[in-house]
Order: sequence, then structure tokens, then C-alpha cells
Amino acid sequence: SIADHLAGWFAAQAAPKPLVGRHALVTSGPTHEPIDPVRYIANRSSGKQGHAVAAALAALGARVTLVSGPVRLPDPAGVNVVAVETASEMLTACRAALPADIFVAAAAVADWRVEAAGQKLKKRDGGGPPALTLTENPDILATLSTTGPYRPELVVGFAAETNDVVAYARAKRLRKGCDWIVANDVSPATGTFGGDRNSVHVIRADGTEEAWENLAKTEVASRLAAAISNHFVNGKK
Amino acid sequence: SIADHLAGWFAAQAAPKPLVGRHALVTSGPTHEPIDPVRYIANRSSGKQGHAVAAALAALGARVTLVSGPVRLPDPAGVNVVAVETASEMLTACRAALPADIFVAAAAVADWRVEAAGQKLKKRDGGGPPALTLTENPDILATLSTTGPYRPELVVGFAAETNDVVAYARAKRLRKGCDWIVANDVSPATGTFGGDRNSVHVIRADGTEEAWENLAKTEVASRLAAAISNHFVNGKK
Repeated sequence: SIADHLAGWFAAQAAPKPLVGRHALVTSGPTHEPIDPVRYIANRSSGKQGHAVAAALAALGARVTLVSGPVRLPDPAGVNVVAVETASEMLTACRAALPADIFVAAAAVADWRVEAAGQKLKKRDGGGPPALTLTENPDILATLSTTGPYRPELVVGFAAETNDVVAYARAKRLRKGCDWIVANDVSPATGTFGGDRNSVHVIRADGTEEAWENLAKTEVASRLAAAISNHFVNGKK
Repeated sequence: SIADHLAGWFAAQAAPKPLVGRHALVTSGPTHEPIDPVRYIANRSSGKQGHAVAAALAALGARVTLVSGPVRLPDPAGVNVVAVETASEMLTACRAALPADIFVAAAAVADWRVEAAGQKLKKRDGGGPPALTLTENPDILATLSTTGPYRPELVVGFAAETNDVVAYARAKRLRKGCDWIVANDVSPATGTFGGDRNSVHVIRADGTEEAWENLAKTEVASRLAAAISNHFVNGKK
């Protein structure tokens, strides 16, 4: 009802804004990597989790820049959205948005792009399939985790895995150099990619780990935003 | 206005239905070919042209089965829609829909799929990009064009090219064995993929060719449906 909506709005206005004065940079969605003028490599990320994180950080008072790949979602209210298509464009947009206090890398960035995506791919003269030569994409999480004057104070990665989720995520956190990592199982049976719910493990540099099981993606986002806020208020890493 | 809408409805009811008693099978949209559980190869086809052809054939009285890859379009009214994801699924669905009098292959079917799309693709131990081994997909247009008791009487292919459109399309018609081919230029500058307009060349087995320039995709569909109807009424191939 309108009364409920107004009550929610007044509650939001009255809620504490512990992240006022902080700039949060969030990535969301898939990237599309062109193979040729008509074909591309995509992934099943819907952007729901990343967009929810951006909205939750804005609700706590942060100024939020959301760099998003192609998604079918509305822009979250009060968030500055930068639309990109490829991993290279996403890195460029993230760099342009620095400095930031918080970086949450929730996008499912393609690890590889296709070399020489020029004219339409044709069968080879011999009739066989063409060779697709892949090149490594820039690693946005590792790049923004690198120590230096522009490193955000708190860098949170996401790890989307289909097996041995926690083990792979712990290794990924160390390899990337981020402070926290949010690990989730995206194997098709879970319905995580494209769905509205998520089960995650939060793994921190201080060795603490938490399991947040079977929550709405908006609730995962609220808990993550609260934990981020707690870090800035209490210095907990 | 409601009056216009009703007038349109009554006009549609009163319009001649030259394709009553005919079954038309139409494919539309892209196919998605999985690389692994989270990644896939897609293309920029929106399905607008194929869906418009299905609607136009239904408006002329045909019973229409529309086999569509993943699109963001509503199902056309009065059309039986079968949703598929991959080229293999599309061929299976087309075969299941036979017999048909008319086959219009408007989908942008992936020529290749990825072998062994099992666990999530990982970097190789050496750190380099993985090899993507492509395998040829079934050729739906060529398969349904093959002479035999289940070959639809009139088979119409589409050719999406980015250069030398007409020359490639003539060769494609001969190679596939279809009766007509509708050739269009999908190079990015034209805005055809995803857009609402199209410029096509219609190339027929009898050697006649027509250029339909810069039309709404719905108008291309109406002209094609009228030409198909003309074939069945006048025996013009």
C-alpha cells in the first residue's frame, strides 16, 4: 500500500547512514566477449546479486558507482550506473571511478576473450570448424587488489564455482590479494545464476569464515553491506 | 484507441485466410551453445524477424509452430511456441513438429558447439588459456531441405552475412537445397541484429530476385507471408 511505501521511505531516511562520505565501487552482471561481429561469449550471471549489493551500500549512505555488464535489471535507485560490455571496458570504467574506499567485484567477468574478432567467422576451406584462439582478459579483482595509493581500503571478491567451492575460494582470495571473498556454488542444480536466492561462504583475510545459507540475494546483500559498514566503524577486517 | 483496435480486429477476422489448412514451421532467435556450466556462446539475433514471420503466417490462416531460441519477446498470438536453447534442441523440436507444408528458418543457429561442456573451464596448469574445441552443429536448414517424404513443400532459409551478402546467399541457397533464401546484412553498422528494420534480398530457385529495402521487420514478414501464400495459391516457386 501507499502507507507501507511511505513508512518504508521514512524508515530508510531515518536509518543510520554509517557509510556517508564513503565511495563504493561495485561490478555486476556478465561480460560479453565478441567472437566476431555477430557472435559472443556470455555467461549466465543475471547481475541480481551485484545490483543488490550496490543498492544495499547506497541504503547505508555510501556514494555508489555500479559498473555493470549487459543485464535485464533496472538501475538501483540512487546509484551511478556505468554500462559496459567486455572485461576490458569494465576494467577501464573501474579505473576511471577510482579512488574508492570499497570495491565489491560481484561481476562474472570473462577470464578470456577471443583474439581478432573481426569479420564473421566462416568454416575453414577444409570444411572443419575454425580455431578459436583465446587470450587472457585483464584480471579486474587482482588489479584493484594490488597495493598502491589507489587500492580501495576494503576489497571484496566473489568466487563462482561449480565444485569444491570453499577450497577454490580460499585459494582465489590469496591469489587475487583481496580482503574478503564471497564464495557461491553456481552449478546449474543450485539455480543461483539467474535465480533470486543464494547460499554463500564469506572468507576473510583474518581467517574467519561464515556460511550464509539459502537467503534472498537482497538479504545476502544487506548482510554484506552491514559487514562492510562494521569494518569501517570498528576497523574489523 | 479502442475503436481502432476493434476495427483492426474485425478487419483481421474478415481478411482472406489463404493459408488455412497449411502447417508452417518457423525458427527464430539465437541459439546458446554451452561452453561449460556457466559460460556459453551466443549471437546478437533478437528473434524479431522470425517472430514477425510466424505472426504474419498465422494472420494468413496457417497453423504455426515457432521453435525459438532464447529471446526477450512475447509469444506471437495464436502461435504454438516451442522454446529451445541449443542448435541440437532446435533440430529435435523441428523434427518433432513435422510434417509441415512450409518451413521458414529465420533463427541464427550457431554453426558450432563446444565439445565436452562439463565442469567449469579452468586455466591450464601452465597458466595459459584453455583450448576451445569446436564441433559442427547439425545443419537444420540443410536437413529439412533434404528431399524425402517429410520435406516441407516450401523451404525458406535466411542468410545473415556481413559482406558480399547476395553472393554468399546465392551460394548458400544452392548448398542448403532450400527453395528461397532471404539474405540480409547484419554487419553492426546496419543495426539489423536487435533493431526493428531490415533490408533484404529474396533469392528464389527459379532465378528471380527481389530487393526489399529499409522496411520494418513486420513489413518484411508480411511481404514474405504474402509471397508464401502466393506460392500455394498460384503454384509459384
